[in-house]
Amino acid sequence: MAVNAAERTAMSRALELAARGPRGANPQVGAVILSSTGDVLAEGWHRGAGTPHAEVDALSKLAPGAAHGATAVVTLEPCNHTGRTGPCAVALIEAGVARVVYALDDPGAVSGGGAERLRAAGVEVESGEQADAAGALIEGWLTAQRLGRPHVTVKWAQSLDGRAAAADGSSQWITGPVARADVHRRRAEADAIAVGTGTVLADDPALTARDGDTLLPHQPVPVVIGTRSTPEDAAVHRHPHPPLFFDTHDLAAVMADLHGRGIQRLFVEGGPTLASAFLAAGLADQVLAYIAPVLLGGERLALTDIGVPSIAAARRLTVDGWVPLGDDLLVVARPAEENESHNEGAA
Amino acid sequence: MAVNAAERTAMSRALELAARGPRGANPQVGAVILSSTGDVLAEGWHRGAGTPHAEVDALSKLAPGAAHGATAVVTLEPCNHTGRTGPCAVALIEAGVARVVYALDDPGAVSGGGAERLRAAGVEVESGEQADAAGALIEGWLTAQRLGRPHVTVKWAQSLDGRAAAADGSSQWITGPVARADVHRRRAEADAIAVGTGTVLADDPALTARDGDTLLPHQPVPVVIGTRSTPEDAAVHRHPHPPLFFDTHDLAAVMADLHGRGIQRLFVEGGPTLASAFLAAGLADQVLAYIAPVLLGGERLALTDIGVPSIAAARRLTVDGWVPLGDDLLVVARPAEENESHNEGAA
Ligand SMILES: NC(=O)c1ccc[n+]([C@@H]2O[C@H](COP(=O)([O-])OP(=O)(O)OC[C@H]3O[C@@H](n4cnc5c(N)ncnc54)[C@H](OP(=O)(O)O)[C@@H]3O)[C@@H](O)[C@H]2O)c1
Ligand SMILES: NC(=O)c1ccc[n+]([C@@H]2O[C@H](COP(=O)([O-])OP(=O)(O)OC[C@H]3O[C@@H](n4cnc5c(N)ncnc54)[C@H](OP(=O)(O)O)[C@@H]3O)[C@@H](O)[C@H]2O)c1
Repeated sequence: MAVNAAERTAMSRALELAARGPRGANPQVGAVILSSTGDVLAEGWHRGAGTPHAEVDALSKLAPGAAHGATAVVTLEPCNHTGRTGPCAVALIEAGVARVVYALDDPGAVSGGGAERLRAAGVEVESGEQADAAGALIEGWLTAQRLGRPHVTVKWAQSLDGRAAAADGSSQWITGPVARADVHRRRAEADAIAVGTGTVLADDPALTARDGDTLLPHQPVPVVIGTRSTPEDAAVHRHPHPPLFFDTHDLAAVMADLHGRGIQRLFVEGGPTLASAFLAAGLADQVLAYIAPVLLGGERLALTDIGVPSIAAARRLTVDGWVPLGDDLLVVARPAEENESHNEGAA
Repeated sequence: MAVNAAERTAMSRALELAARGPRGANPQVGAVILSSTGDVLAEGWHRGAGTPHAEVDALSKLAPGAAHGATAVVTLEPCNHTGRTGPCAVALIEAGVARVVYALDDPGAVSGGGAERLRAAGVEVESGEQADAAGALIEGWLTAQRLGRPHVTVKWAQSLDGRAAAADGSSQWITGPVARADVHRRRAEADAIAVGTGTVLADDPALTARDGDTLLPHQPVPVVIGTRSTPEDAAVHRHPHPPLFFDTHDLAAVMADLHGRGIQRLFVEGGPTLASAFLAAGLADQVLAYIAPVLLGGERLALTDIGVPSIAAARRLTVDGWVPLGDDLLVVARPAEENESHNEGAA
């Protein structure tokens, strides 16, 4: 049986409702309950971890028995696990819902299986309606689910010859205003922005996303990684979000913590030690190298050691774009898939 | 008085004749002697240092007195200095030439002034006819005249992060086949190709310009710079041209020697020490950096020290092209003019 017009309209509405919820550890989900004749009985959405799921939120607005024989239209497959709330599949069954239309399958190993449970209870289930839009809405969450950690972008600026600074440490500004504006725009798309203590102590960065002097609407949470302590008067303390300090070099532990906090996209802005540590640990999903057309020579490298002993072990990248930005070039890349054959051929 | 049709045709012919001569320390020049009615009396061209100049070559084909009242059409201003041959201006005056049409002014401080000398002797002089074509023909020579040395291209291949090799020294191939073919094409456009002894001892390169295994028609003269000696069985000894060895680190002296030999375009292929030495000495007119989309980290840098103490002293480049070549990127650049403002603006 296909999805009818009322259900299709209800799904669009459910997607709007979903978008009202916060981005975080839980996905944004919306739900609409329709009567058997296609009238809207109730709407709901998920307001973040610890609050009711969208289906339960919608059902809670109805008098007992009112959902009997109804259709639930939901942007994500109803969950099947007992967390801070009971399984939504069970709540729908108990409410007497006759039919469930949802957009995306739940990718979670623990929470998935809701559709099966519903079917086993005799509920009619349709999936895939407006799945693309639903996927786009929670793309960051899906990626973090797949990775089991935040998606990581490692960004650095360098001279053409791979230096982060001149011999005396001076580096401002290697890259130009167009490149710097691009960095700020990308900061604003991240949930968190990480630097090592070295950068905090050397540069005292604000770690805000700005357009000129104006703060952009979305600000990433500042994250400082390293054992040295950050001065009390450091600029990062004046960030709109309270900074997170991780007194460790264990990046996997940092990622697990951030994942638990619902950080889906992490922007790693260095310096060289932290950027290299992320690359060496295989924790870079995207690389952004801003190349300024200058030569510096010397010892101040933009990347240090990333654990590559021989050319066979080189970290090959797939370049998604060589993007000129003013006088500079932005290289947008990601680790090449294993077995992608790059640069092979006649010697 | 303007240039007439016969003279224009004669100039085209003179340019063809000029191109028969060899590229070298002297410019390629052609000359055609026309009767007062516009008939071709004689043709000549310059066959290289130590041989007669084009005008003298043409005049030598005529019986004494035959050039009286004639017009000499020459691709370069007749010279005014006594070298291995006497001044051409004087030869033309003595032959009784009434009019001289030439394309390009002689840029040489010593040889220039020929037009003035001709006029002082009552010869009618027209200049600038087909000057662009004449300039294009001897562009390399004009550049070397202006610089007082060969034009230098410094080329290297690097990982995105500026390394020439992995930790164990392995580097073949950082860049791919398309980039390597581009290097060979550019080698074939150079008069000479230089490496340091370090590269000879490490890689034993052939220093030929090839298309696959086939030698390209023009081969650059191989040049090896450094105090260590090259093994007798080194591949460079099998180059079509006998190699030049310079047992010195004095690059200015090397340039003077090559200039004297008529080398107009030098292609410096490294390694890191030699490339950096050329950059540090301000002897790079063009930079070609082939960037492979790999990260290597570690200590094997494509450039070492180039004498930049602070960011203010950075060697700023003007990029003529960010050129994707297969998976790689070629950066074609040259030193930025002083006072060109790069990357300045809001901080
Ligand atoms: N070119 C660029 O894009 C860029 C960007 C940012 C900064 N910078 C420059 O980089 C310089 C600072 O360099 P940096 O390398 O010291 O900065 P950094 O990478 O920000 O900080 C290095 C510190 O990070 C801590 N850390 C955290 N996790 C680590 C791990 N897994 N492995 C090793 N260390 C870890 C360590 O701190 P503890 O010792 O405290 O434990 C380490 O000393 C400054 O001059 C700054 O201007 C350049
Ligand atoms: N990535 C690339 O594009 C590229 C290109 C070529 C080579 N390589 C690699 O580079 C490595 C060799 O590196 P390298 O730096 O030893 O090679 P190099 O630059 O070819 O040779 C260095 C030597 O050049 C001599 N030299 C001449 N003029 C000099 C000057 N003004 N200042 C200093 N030295 C001068 C010195 O030789 P003496 O000590 O004999 O006096 C010096 O040791 C090899 O592994 C090779 O594979 C990479």
